[in-house]
Amino acid sequence: AQPIRIALIPGDGVGGEVLAEALPCLEWARNRGRALETVTFPYGADHYLATGETLPDSAFTDLRDHFDAILFGAVGDPRVPDGRHAEEILLRLRRDLELTVNFRPCPPFLSVARTVDIEVFRENTEGSYCLQGSTEVGRAVDLSVHTEPAVRRLLQAAFARAASLGRPLTLAHKANVLKHGHGLWMRVFEELRAAHPEVNARGMHADALLCALVQDPTPFGLIAADNYLGDLISDLCAAFIGGMGVAPSISFAPHRPHRCAVLAEPVHGSAPDIAGQGLANPVGMLLSTALLFRYLGWEPEAAALETAVSDALAAGAKTRDLGGTLSTAAMGRAIRERF
Amino acid sequence: AQPIRIALIPGDGVGGEVLAEALPCLEWARNRGRALETVTFPYGADHYLATGETLPDSAFTDLRDHFDAILFGAVGDPRVPDGRHAEEILLRLRRDLELTVNFRPCPPFLSVARTVDIEVFRENTEGSYCLQGSTEVGRAVDLSVHTEPAVRRLLQAAFARAASLGRPLTLAHKANVLKHGHGLWMRVFEELRAAHPEVNARGMHADALLCALVQDPTPFGLIAADNYLGDLISDLCAAFIGGMGVAPSISFAPHRPHRCAVLAEPVHGSAPDIAGQGLANPVGMLLSTALLFRYLGWEPEAAALETAVSDALAAGAKTRDLGGTLSTAAMGRAIRERF
Ligand SMILES: CC(C)[C@H](C(=O)O)[C@@H](O)C(=O)O
Ligand SMILES: CC(C)[C@H](C(=O)O)[C@@H](O)C(=O)O
Repeated sequence: AQPIRIALIPGDGVGGEVLAEALPCLEWARNRGRALETVTFPYGADHYLATGETLPDSAFTDLRDHFDAILFGAVGDPRVPDGRHAEEILLRLRRDLELTVNFRPCPPFLSVARTVDIEVFRENTEGSYCLQGSTEVGRAVDLSVHTEPAVRRLLQAAFARAASLGRPLTLAHKANVLKHGHGLWMRVFEELRAAHPEVNARGMHADALLCALVQDPTPFGLIAADNYLGDLISDLCAAFIGGMGVAPSISFAPHRPHRCAVLAEPVHGSAPDIAGQGLANPVGMLLSTALLFRYLGWEPEAAALETAVSDALAAGAKTRDLGGTLSTAAMGRAIRERF
Repeated sequence: AQPIRIALIPGDGVGGEVLAEALPCLEWARNRGRALETVTFPYGADHYLATGETLPDSAFTDLRDHFDAILFGAVGDPRVPDGRHAEEILLRLRRDLELTVNFRPCPPFLSVARTVDIEVFRENTEGSYCLQGSTEVGRAVDLSVHTEPAVRRLLQAAFARAASLGRPLTLAHKANVLKHGHGLWMRVFEELRAAHPEVNARGMHADALLCALVQDPTPFGLIAADNYLGDLISDLCAAFIGGMGVAPSISFAPHRPHRCAVLAEPVHGSAPDIAGQGLANPVGMLLSTALLFRYLGWEPEAAALETAVSDALAAGAKTRDLGGTLSTAAMGRAIRERF
């Protein structure tokens, strides 16, 4: 069989530090007989500042047509205050690879207080992330664009998962204000709800949902949301599992429009304030790698990696953000030695 | 002196039940020598369904030109699924009276776990609440419109308050995505920050802010946000003080374009599921009434009402939502008997 081709994009700040901890896990999977090869791409702030290039079109088409997956660190750098490179690298990959579904689970084994088991399904390509708008003197407008195919793909993925797990599904919306966009979401949601009587599904105003989540996250199962609300809700939920450093995510194109239909990245950003000091938590990155293994059909490796993370944390291995003292590399080792 | 003219709009659902508990407080203020008179307006779902009228223009101009303040219950009714009347009553009043600043404090005495002392300054008239957009086949667009005068008024109010209290101010934004609108917010924020070196002010990405708030709300002081984020963040923060039933709010026009420049309303909605059963918590409404007293310069009455609420809660007087057994009316009495 052809090897799975995985593109590595470390990006900025702590991106490279946490991605470095994933590499031995890929090596381990290869040693267990998984055919894979990797190529590292240099795109990020350093490359942009040195060359003026964000993500060249030739690199984009190479990624799109000659790779199966992307493992992504993080982008964002204070030397690029308008975030142009983040937009043209990460947001472009999500959009132009049509990675509609951003799956952001809060695994129960990470729970810090009450046991949560929430999975956020975030639409990943449009809404407020269409980056359309205008600035005139004293007046600024942003557009939020929602299209039925993307909304339907996201909700279908969420309903399918809710049905297979037998868990409740909540749609976050503010249709009483965002009449058009969230009106479309409600219409497709109601249609799928009628088609899936086995799923306990309901819509909830996003404001009331945030209050209810903070008061008690335990009754929630799956949460579906548009791009902006999904961004906010998934970060909020990260607080239930120890913060941004541990939260994993994977984005995929259920309709597989291109060879490259999946990108795994931690929920956290490039964290420039702690970059280069070995302070970053690699758990979010490693759990995202496990999600990629599962996506590729490598369930034993996915489960082994998740168990190793869970066991390491249970044994007290912790980075600074979790109140421990381990460096990024030491935490990575503490996890891998449990394979 | 001319009496203060207060318009009462009970609205829908529990709106009338909670507003009923505020009336004896107005009466009490009058008995203490505060010159006030009230007029009740019938606008809400019942009136709309019976007459087709939401808020007639004649009533709007009457409110605008012949009243000093509005005390509002809540609007929203499942019999008006598109929420048209809520839009044409509440959102119109906020917008056309130019009530830019929606002040939503989380008073420390309401704290349920850790002691919080957060005040949300929500822009109240524009952003995603401009209600502009379009729906075509399979494609829906909402606009978010921000203008410099409103952004500046909101931020000026927040900076002035932060300066007078000596407390930190955080601007919630997502300027890395909402380039235009939040770009404008950042520009005005940086300008005011330079003009107020005495205020410890910083911007924070809204997603990271939600995570940080849930992990530990105690370091936060004032939070300024646009209309949509302010809606979400104020409801999230209500979870720190016992939920939506107790959270107060007051909206005002710092530039006083009209005689009527203030509207007080609880943060909660009309709660149709519990309406008419005496289950609603009047605390949010009564604390909003206290905010109105303070706005009118009636500080002793404001403080007395807040102390009465605080003492009643401390003595164990609680409605269902707080784990108690008192009805709306019994809770109102338990508070008033402490005047
Ligand atoms: C870096 C930023 C553009 C990104 C987003 O808003 O999607 C991040 O917050 C995330 O959640 O992956
Ligand atoms: C009822 C609704 C339109 C309103 C809003 O979104 O502003 C409410 O949630 C609030 O916060 O006052």
